[in-house]
Amino acid sequence: MARITRKESHAQTRERLVETAYRLFMADGYNATSLDKVAAEAGFSKGAVYSNFATKTELGLAVLDVLHLERAMSLAAAVLEAETAEDRIAGFAKWADENIGDVGWGALEVEFATSNRNVPGVNNELASRRRLLTAALGDLLEQQATDLGLVLPMPAEDAATQLLALGIGLGLQRAFDPELPVTGIVDQLRSLLERSTPIDPSGR
Amino acid sequence: MARITRKESHAQTRERLVETAYRLFMADGYNATSLDKVAAEAGFSKGAVYSNFATKTELGLAVLDVLHLERAMSLAAAVLEAETAEDRIAGFAKWADENIGDVGWGALEVEFATSNRNVPGVNNELASRRRLLTAALGDLLEQQATDLGLVLPMPAEDAATQLLALGIGLGLQRAFDPELPVTGIVDQLRSLLERSTPIDPSGR
Repeated sequence: MARITRKESHAQTRERLVETAYRLFMADGYNATSLDKVAAEAGFSKGAVYSNFATKTELGLAVLDVLHLERAMSLAAAVLEAETAEDRIAGFAKWADENIGDVGWGALEVEFATSNRNVPGVNNELASRRRLLTAALGDLLEQQATDLGLVLPMPAEDAATQLLALGIGLGLQRAFDPELPVTGIVDQLRSLLERSTPIDPSGR
Repeated sequence: MARITRKESHAQTRERLVETAYRLFMADGYNATSLDKVAAEAGFSKGAVYSNFATKTELGLAVLDVLHLERAMSLAAAVLEAETAEDRIAGFAKWADENIGDVGWGALEVEFATSNRNVPGVNNELASRRRLLTAALGDLLEQQATDLGLVLPMPAEDAATQLLALGIGLGLQRAFDPELPVTGIVDQLRSLLERSTPIDPSGR
Protein backbone atom coordinates (compact mmCIF):
# COMPACT_ATOMS: atom_id res chain seq x y z
CA MET A 1 0.00 0.00 0.00
CA ALA A 2 1.40 3.35 -0.97
CA ARG A 3 2.04 5.64 1.94
CA ILE A 4 0.52 9.06 1.77
CA THR A 5 2.07 12.20 3.15
CA ARG A 6 0.56 14.19 5.94
CA LYS A 7 -0.31 16.94 3.49
CA GLU A 8 -2.15 14.49 1.21
CA SER A 9 -4.01 13.06 4.17
CA HIS A 10 -5.07 16.54 5.23
CA ALA A 11 -6.35 17.25 1.72
CA GLN A 12 -8.27 13.95 1.68
CA THR A 13 -9.91 14.74 5.00
CA ARG A 14 -10.90 18.15 3.69
CA GLU A 15 -12.35 16.74 0.50
CA ARG A 16 -14.33 14.14 2.40
CA LEU A 17 -15.70 16.75 4.79
CA VAL A 18 -16.81 18.95 1.89
CA GLU A 19 -18.49 16.01 0.13
CA THR A 20 -20.32 15.00 3.29
CA ALA A 21 -21.38 18.57 4.07
CA TYR A 22 -22.55 19.00 0.45
CA ARG A 23 -24.78 15.93 0.75
CA LEU A 24 -26.21 16.93 4.15
CA PHE A 25 -26.71 20.63 3.28
CA MET A 26 -28.56 19.70 0.10
CA ALA A 27 -30.74 17.09 1.78
CA ASP A 28 -31.50 18.67 5.18
CA GLY A 29 -30.60 22.34 4.71
CA TYR A 30 -27.68 24.48 5.87
CA ASN A 31 -29.08 25.61 9.21
CA ALA A 32 -30.37 22.14 10.14
CA THR A 33 -26.91 20.57 9.66
CA SER A 34 -24.41 21.00 12.51
CA LEU A 35 -20.63 20.69 12.19
CA ASP A 36 -20.89 17.80 14.68
CA LYS A 37 -23.18 15.94 12.31
CA VAL A 38 -20.85 16.53 9.35
CA ALA A 39 -17.89 15.23 11.37
CA ALA A 40 -19.80 12.15 12.57
CA GLU A 41 -21.15 11.28 9.10
CA ALA A 42 -17.72 11.70 7.52
CA GLY A 43 -16.19 9.53 10.26
CA PHE A 44 -13.95 12.21 11.74
CA SER A 45 -13.67 14.00 15.06
CA LYS A 46 -14.95 17.52 15.42
CA GLY A 47 -11.29 18.51 15.80
CA ALA A 48 -10.64 17.29 12.26
CA VAL A 49 -13.36 19.64 11.02
CA TYR A 50 -11.91 22.61 12.87
CA SER A 51 -8.36 21.92 11.68
CA ASN A 52 -9.75 22.31 8.12
CA PHE A 53 -12.48 24.91 8.55
CA ALA A 54 -12.44 27.56 11.25
CA THR A 55 -16.20 28.04 11.02
CA LYS A 56 -19.31 26.51 9.48
CA THR A 57 -19.40 29.57 7.21
CA GLU A 58 -16.02 28.53 5.71
CA LEU A 59 -17.26 24.99 5.15
CA GLY A 60 -20.41 26.41 3.53
CA LEU A 61 -18.35 28.52 1.11
CA ALA A 62 -16.28 25.45 0.17
CA VAL A 63 -19.50 23.53 -0.53
CA LEU A 64 -20.87 26.39 -2.66
CA ASP A 65 -17.63 26.35 -4.71
CA VAL A 66 -18.02 22.63 -5.48
CA LEU A 67 -21.70 23.10 -6.30
CA HIS A 68 -21.05 26.04 -8.64
CA LEU A 69 -18.24 24.23 -10.45
CA GLU A 70 -20.37 21.11 -10.88
CA ARG A 71 -23.37 22.99 -12.28
CA ALA A 72 -21.20 25.19 -14.50
CA MET A 73 -19.57 22.09 -15.96
CA SER A 74 -22.88 20.32 -16.57
CA LEU A 75 -24.19 23.48 -18.26
CA ALA A 76 -21.14 23.71 -20.50
CA ALA A 77 -21.46 20.01 -21.40
CA ALA A 78 -25.16 20.46 -22.20
CA VAL A 79 -24.52 23.14 -24.80
CA LEU A 80 -21.06 22.19 -26.11
CA GLU A 81 -22.18 18.75 -27.27
CA ALA A 82 -24.66 20.29 -29.70
CA GLU A 83 -24.03 21.40 -33.29
CA THR A 84 -26.72 23.82 -34.43
CA ALA A 85 -28.11 26.83 -32.57
CA GLU A 86 -31.44 24.99 -32.17
CA ASP A 87 -29.70 21.96 -30.63
CA ARG A 88 -27.77 24.17 -28.25
CA ILE A 89 -30.98 25.88 -27.16
CA ALA A 90 -32.57 22.44 -26.65
CA GLY A 91 -29.55 21.32 -24.60
CA PHE A 92 -29.82 24.43 -22.49
CA ALA A 93 -33.58 23.90 -22.03
CA LYS A 94 -32.98 20.38 -20.73
CA TRP A 95 -30.25 21.56 -18.34
CA ALA A 96 -32.46 24.43 -17.15
CA ASP A 97 -35.41 22.16 -16.48
CA GLU A 98 -33.25 19.80 -14.42
CA ASN A 99 -31.22 22.38 -12.51
CA ILE A 100 -33.24 25.57 -12.15
CA GLY A 101 -35.63 24.95 -9.33
CA ASP A 102 -33.57 22.19 -7.76
CA VAL A 103 -35.00 22.95 -4.32
CA GLY A 104 -31.90 21.74 -2.47
CA TRP A 105 -29.60 24.00 -4.47
CA GLY A 106 -31.76 27.10 -4.28
CA ALA A 107 -32.51 26.68 -0.59
CA LEU A 108 -28.82 26.20 0.23
CA GLU A 109 -27.83 29.40 -1.60
CA VAL A 110 -30.47 31.56 0.08
CA GLU A 111 -30.17 29.94 3.49
CA PHE A 112 -26.42 30.44 3.40
CA ALA A 113 -26.68 34.04 2.26
CA THR A 114 -29.38 35.03 4.76
CA SER A 115 -27.83 33.17 7.73
CA ASN A 116 -24.41 34.67 7.14
CA ARG A 117 -25.34 38.14 6.01
CA ASN A 118 -23.99 39.71 9.20
CA VAL A 119 -20.78 37.64 9.27
CA PRO A 120 -17.91 39.98 8.34
CA GLY A 121 -16.44 39.29 4.91
CA VAL A 122 -19.15 36.88 3.72
CA ASN A 123 -20.87 39.38 1.46
CA ASN A 124 -17.54 40.02 -0.28
CA GLU A 125 -17.00 36.28 -0.69
CA LEU A 126 -20.45 35.87 -2.24
CA ALA A 127 -19.97 38.94 -4.44
CA SER A 128 -16.70 37.55 -5.82
CA ARG A 129 -18.42 34.23 -6.58
CA ARG A 130 -21.19 36.13 -8.36
CA ARG A 131 -18.64 37.93 -10.52
CA LEU A 132 -16.79 34.69 -11.25
CA LEU A 133 -19.98 32.88 -12.29
CA THR A 134 -21.11 35.81 -14.41
CA ALA A 135 -17.73 35.99 -16.16
CA ALA A 136 -17.72 32.21 -16.79
CA LEU A 137 -21.25 32.35 -18.20
CA GLY A 138 -20.27 35.35 -20.33
CA ASP A 139 -17.28 33.43 -21.74
CA LEU A 140 -19.51 30.45 -22.55
CA LEU A 141 -21.99 32.73 -24.34
CA GLU A 142 -19.25 34.47 -26.29
CA GLN A 143 -17.77 31.13 -27.33
CA GLN A 144 -21.17 29.79 -28.40
CA ALA A 145 -21.83 32.89 -30.46
CA THR A 146 -18.41 32.67 -32.14
CA ASP A 147 -18.93 28.96 -32.90
CA LEU A 148 -22.21 29.89 -34.59
CA GLY A 149 -20.56 32.74 -36.49
CA LEU A 150 -22.51 35.38 -34.55
CA VAL A 151 -21.86 38.58 -32.65
CA LEU A 152 -24.06 39.06 -29.55
CA PRO A 153 -26.30 42.15 -29.54
CA MET A 154 -24.83 43.31 -26.19
CA PRO A 155 -21.64 42.75 -24.17
CA ALA A 156 -21.50 39.03 -23.22
CA GLU A 157 -21.16 39.92 -19.56
CA ASP A 158 -24.39 41.94 -19.58
CA ALA A 159 -26.21 39.06 -21.25
CA ALA A 160 -24.72 36.71 -18.64
CA THR A 161 -25.87 38.97 -15.78
CA GLN A 162 -29.42 38.86 -17.17
CA LEU A 163 -29.42 35.09 -17.67
CA LEU A 164 -27.96 34.41 -14.22
CA ALA A 165 -30.49 36.68 -12.49
CA LEU A 166 -33.33 35.18 -14.52
CA GLY A 167 -32.19 31.68 -13.53
CA ILE A 168 -31.97 32.60 -9.85
CA GLY A 169 -35.38 34.27 -9.91
CA LEU A 170 -37.08 31.41 -11.74
CA GLY A 171 -35.33 28.86 -9.51
CA LEU A 172 -36.54 30.48 -6.33
CA GLN A 173 -40.11 30.63 -7.56
CA ARG A 174 -39.99 27.06 -8.85
CA ALA A 175 -38.92 25.96 -5.37
CA PHE A 176 -42.44 26.65 -4.12
CA ASP A 177 -44.24 26.48 -7.47
CA PRO A 178 -42.81 23.65 -9.59
CA GLU A 179 -45.44 24.31 -12.27
CA LEU A 180 -43.66 27.51 -13.31
CA PRO A 181 -41.87 26.52 -16.52
CA VAL A 182 -38.28 27.43 -17.37
CA THR A 183 -39.49 28.77 -20.74
CA GLY A 184 -38.66 32.34 -19.67
CA ILE A 185 -34.92 31.76 -19.60
CA VAL A 186 -34.93 29.57 -22.72
CA ASP A 187 -36.82 32.31 -24.61
CA GLN A 188 -34.28 34.82 -23.34
CA LEU A 189 -31.39 32.79 -24.77
CA ARG A 190 -33.27 32.33 -28.05
CA SER A 191 -34.02 36.05 -28.32
CA LEU A 192 -30.34 36.79 -27.63
CA LEU A 193 -29.28 34.58 -30.53
CA GLU A 194 -32.02 35.95 -32.80
CA ARG A 195 -30.83 39.50 -32.15
CA SER A 196 -27.21 38.52 -32.84
CA THR A 197 -25.65 39.53 -36.15
CA PRO A 198 -23.32 37.53 -38.43
CA ILE A 199 -19.63 38.05 -37.83
CA ASP A 200 -18.27 40.44 -40.46
CA PRO A 201 -15.87 38.23 -42.46
CA SER A 202 -13.69 41.22 -43.33
CA GLY A 203 -13.03 41.49 -39.60
CA ARG A 204 -14.17 45.10 -39.43
CA MET B 1 -66.17 59.95 20.77
CA ALA B 2 -67.69 57.67 18.17
CA ARG B 3 -68.21 54.12 19.37
CA ILE B 4 -66.82 51.38 17.24
CA THR B 5 -68.32 47.96 16.81
CA ARG B 6 -66.62 44.81 17.95
CA LYS B 7 -66.01 43.85 14.34
CA GLU B 8 -64.33 47.18 13.60
CA SER B 9 -62.19 46.85 16.70
CA HIS B 10 -61.12 43.36 15.63
CA ALA B 11 -60.16 44.68 12.19
CA GLN B 12 -58.19 47.53 13.76
CA THR B 13 -56.29 45.13 16.00
CA ARG B 14 -55.49 42.97 12.99
CA GLU B 15 -54.28 45.93 10.94
CA ARG B 16 -52.09 47.15 13.77
CA LEU B 17 -50.58 43.68 14.25
CA VAL B 18 -49.77 43.41 10.55
CA GLU B 19 -48.18 46.89 10.50
CA THR B 20 -46.07 46.08 13.55
CA ALA B 21 -45.04 42.68 12.20
CA TYR B 22 -44.19 44.30 8.84
CA ARG B 23 -41.85 46.77 10.53
CA LEU B 24 -40.17 44.14 12.74
CA PHE B 25 -39.84 41.51 9.98
CA MET B 26 -38.24 44.04 7.65
CA ALA B 27 -35.86 45.39 10.30
CA ASP B 28 -34.87 42.26 12.21
CA GLY B 29 -35.90 39.37 9.93
CA TYR B 30 -38.76 36.88 10.00
CA ASN B 31 -37.10 34.17 12.09
CA ALA B 32 -35.66 36.62 14.61
CA THR B 33 -39.10 38.13 15.34
CA SER B 34 -41.36 36.18 17.72
CA LEU B 35 -45.14 36.51 17.93
CA ASP B 36 -44.60 37.62 21.54
CA LYS B 37 -42.48 40.51 20.36
CA VAL B 38 -45.05 41.55 17.75
CA ALA B 39 -47.80 41.49 20.42
CA ALA B 40 -45.72 43.47 22.90
CA GLU B 41 -44.66 46.11 20.34
CA ALA B 42 -48.22 46.52 19.10
CA GLY B 43 -49.44 46.85 22.67
CA PHE B 44 -51.64 43.74 22.67
CA SER B 45 -51.66 40.44 24.52
CA LYS B 46 -50.43 37.30 22.83
CA GLY B 47 -54.08 36.18 22.91
CA ALA B 48 -55.00 39.10 20.66
CA VAL B 49 -52.47 37.85 18.11
CA TYR B 50 -53.83 34.32 18.21
CA SER B 51 -57.44 35.45 17.87
CA ASN B 52 -56.37 37.06 14.56
CA PHE B 53 -53.66 34.70 13.30
CA ALA B 54 -53.54 31.02 14.16
CA THR B 55 -49.83 30.85 13.38
CA LYS B 56 -46.82 33.05 12.65
CA THR B 57 -47.01 31.69 9.10
CA GLU B 58 -50.47 33.27 8.68
CA LEU B 59 -49.21 36.59 10.00
CA GLY B 60 -46.25 36.32 7.62
CA LEU B 61 -48.53 35.80 4.63
CA ALA B 62 -50.61 38.84 5.65
CA VAL B 63 -47.42 40.92 5.83
CA LEU B 64 -46.30 39.69 2.37
CA ASP B 65 -49.69 40.74 0.96
CA VAL B 66 -49.28 44.29 2.27
CA LEU B 67 -45.69 44.43 1.03
CA HIS B 68 -46.60 43.20 -2.48
CA LEU B 69 -49.52 45.61 -2.78
CA GLU B 70 -47.37 48.52 -1.64
CA ARG B 71 -44.54 47.76 -4.08
CA ALA B 72 -46.94 47.05 -6.95
CA MET B 73 -48.62 50.42 -6.35
CA SER B 74 -45.32 52.31 -6.19
CA LEU B 75 -44.23 50.58 -9.43
CA ALA B 76 -47.47 51.52 -11.18
CA ALA B 77 -47.14 55.12 -9.97
CA ALA B 78 -43.52 55.26 -11.19
CA VAL B 79 -44.44 54.38 -14.78
CA LEU B 80 -47.96 55.79 -15.06
CA GLU B 81 -46.86 59.33 -14.27
CA ALA B 82 -44.65 59.40 -17.36
CA GLU B 83 -45.60 60.36 -20.92
CA THR B 84 -43.07 59.01 -23.41
CA ALA B 85 -41.60 55.50 -23.57
CA GLU B 86 -38.21 56.93 -22.53
CA ASP B 87 -39.73 58.62 -19.47
CA ARG B 88 -41.52 55.43 -18.49
CA ILE B 89 -38.27 53.48 -18.75
CA ALA B 90 -36.55 56.14 -16.62
CA GLY B 91 -39.38 55.92 -14.05
CA PHE B 92 -39.00 52.17 -13.96
CA ALA B 93 -35.20 52.45 -13.62
CA LYS B 94 -35.61 54.72 -10.59
CA TRP B 95 -38.15 52.37 -8.98
CA ALA B 96 -35.92 49.36 -9.70
CA ASP B 97 -32.87 50.99 -8.17
CA GLU B 98 -34.79 51.83 -5.00
CA ASN B 99 -36.72 48.58 -4.62
CA ILE B 100 -34.75 45.74 -6.19
CA GLY B 101 -32.11 44.82 -3.69
CA ASP B 102 -33.96 46.26 -0.72
CA VAL B 103 -32.27 43.82 1.65
CA GLY B 104 -35.17 43.77 4.11
CA TRP B 105 -37.69 42.90 1.41
CA GLY B 106 -35.60 40.21 -0.27
CA ALA B 107 -34.53 38.62 2.99
CA LEU B 108 -38.13 38.50 4.24
CA GLU B 109 -39.35 36.75 1.08
CA VAL B 110 -36.63 34.10 1.09
CA GLU B 111 -36.59 33.60 4.85
CA PHE B 112 -40.36 33.15 4.85
CA ALA B 113 -40.28 30.72 1.92
CA THR B 114 -37.41 28.62 3.26
CA SER B 115 -38.64 28.56 6.89
CA ASN B 116 -42.14 27.53 5.88
CA ARG B 117 -41.39 25.23 2.98
CA ASN B 118 -42.51 22.17 4.94
CA VAL B 119 -45.65 23.80 6.38
CA PRO B 120 -48.65 22.25 4.58
CA GLY B 121 -50.36 24.63 2.20
CA VAL B 122 -47.73 27.37 2.25
CA ASN B 123 -46.24 26.53 -1.13
CA ASN B 124 -49.72 26.83 -2.64
CA GLU B 125 -50.22 30.18 -0.94
CA LEU B 126 -46.89 31.44 -2.31
CA ALA B 127 -47.63 30.02 -5.76
CA SER B 128 -50.97 31.84 -5.90
CA ARG B 129 -49.25 35.09 -4.91
CA ARG B 130 -46.68 34.52 -7.64
CA ARG B 131 -49.44 34.10 -10.22
CA LEU B 132 -51.27 37.18 -8.93
CA LEU B 133 -48.15 39.35 -9.10
CA THR B 134 -47.26 38.04 -12.55
CA ALA B 135 -50.78 38.75 -13.83
CA ALA B 136 -50.76 42.27 -12.34
CA LEU B 137 -47.36 43.00 -13.89
CA GLY B 138 -48.59 41.59 -17.20
CA ASP B 139 -51.64 43.89 -17.10
CA LEU B 140 -49.42 46.88 -16.38
CA LEU B 141 -47.14 45.99 -19.32
CA GLU B 142 -50.09 45.50 -21.65
CA GLN B 143 -51.56 48.82 -20.60
CA GLN B 144 -48.25 50.61 -21.07
CA ALA B 145 -47.83 49.12 -24.53
CA THR B 146 -51.37 50.12 -25.52
CA ASP B 147 -50.82 53.67 -24.21
CA LEU B 148 -47.73 53.88 -26.40
CA GLY B 149 -49.60 52.46 -29.40
CA LEU B 150 -47.57 49.24 -29.35
CA VAL B 151 -48.15 45.49 -29.42
CA LEU B 152 -45.71 43.49 -27.27
CA PRO B 153 -43.54 40.91 -29.09
CA MET B 154 -44.76 38.12 -26.78
CA PRO B 155 -47.74 37.44 -24.50
CA ALA B 156 -47.72 40.06 -21.71
CA GLU B 157 -47.76 37.34 -19.07
CA ASP B 158 -44.58 35.72 -20.45
CA ALA B 159 -42.85 39.09 -20.47
CA ALA B 160 -44.05 39.64 -16.89
CA THR B 161 -42.72 36.23 -15.80
CA GLN B 162 -39.30 37.15 -17.21
CA LEU B 163 -39.24 40.60 -15.61
CA LEU B 164 -40.39 39.28 -12.22
CA ALA B 165 -37.78 36.50 -12.21
CA LEU B 166 -35.10 38.93 -13.34
CA GLY B 167 -36.06 41.32 -10.53
CA ILE B 168 -35.99 38.56 -7.92
CA GLY B 169 -32.64 37.26 -9.17
CA LEU B 170 -31.02 40.71 -9.30
CA GLY B 171 -32.52 41.61 -5.92
CA LEU B 172 -31.08 38.57 -4.21
CA GLN B 173 -27.63 39.20 -5.64
CA ARG B 174 -27.78 42.91 -4.79
CA ALA B 175 -28.52 41.94 -1.20
CA PHE B 176 -24.91 40.76 -0.80
CA ASP B 177 -23.41 42.75 -3.69
CA PRO B 178 -24.95 46.23 -3.82
CA GLU B 179 -22.58 47.18 -6.65
CA LEU B 180 -24.52 45.00 -9.09
CA PRO B 181 -26.54 47.53 -11.08
CA VAL B 182 -30.22 47.12 -12.00
CA THR B 183 -29.33 47.84 -15.63
CA GLY B 184 -30.16 44.24 -16.59
CA ILE B 185 -33.87 44.59 -15.89
CA VAL B 186 -34.06 48.10 -17.34
CA ASP B 187 -32.41 46.85 -20.56
CA GLN B 188 -34.88 43.99 -20.62
CA LEU B 189 -37.83 46.40 -20.50
CA ARG B 190 -36.23 48.59 -23.17
CA SER B 191 -35.60 45.61 -25.45
CA LEU B 192 -39.22 44.53 -24.95
CA LEU B 193 -40.47 47.93 -26.10
CA GLU B 194 -37.98 48.06 -28.99
CA ARG B 195 -39.19 44.69 -30.25
CA SER B 196 -42.83 45.79 -29.99
CA THR B 197 -44.68 46.68 -33.18
CA PRO B 198 -47.12 49.53 -33.84
CA ILE B 199 -50.79 48.68 -33.29
CA ASP B 200 -52.40 48.01 -36.68
CA PRO B 201 -54.93 50.89 -36.96
CA SER B 202 -57.22 48.76 -39.11
CA GLY B 203 -57.59 46.51 -36.09
CA ARG B 204 -56.43 43.40 -37.96
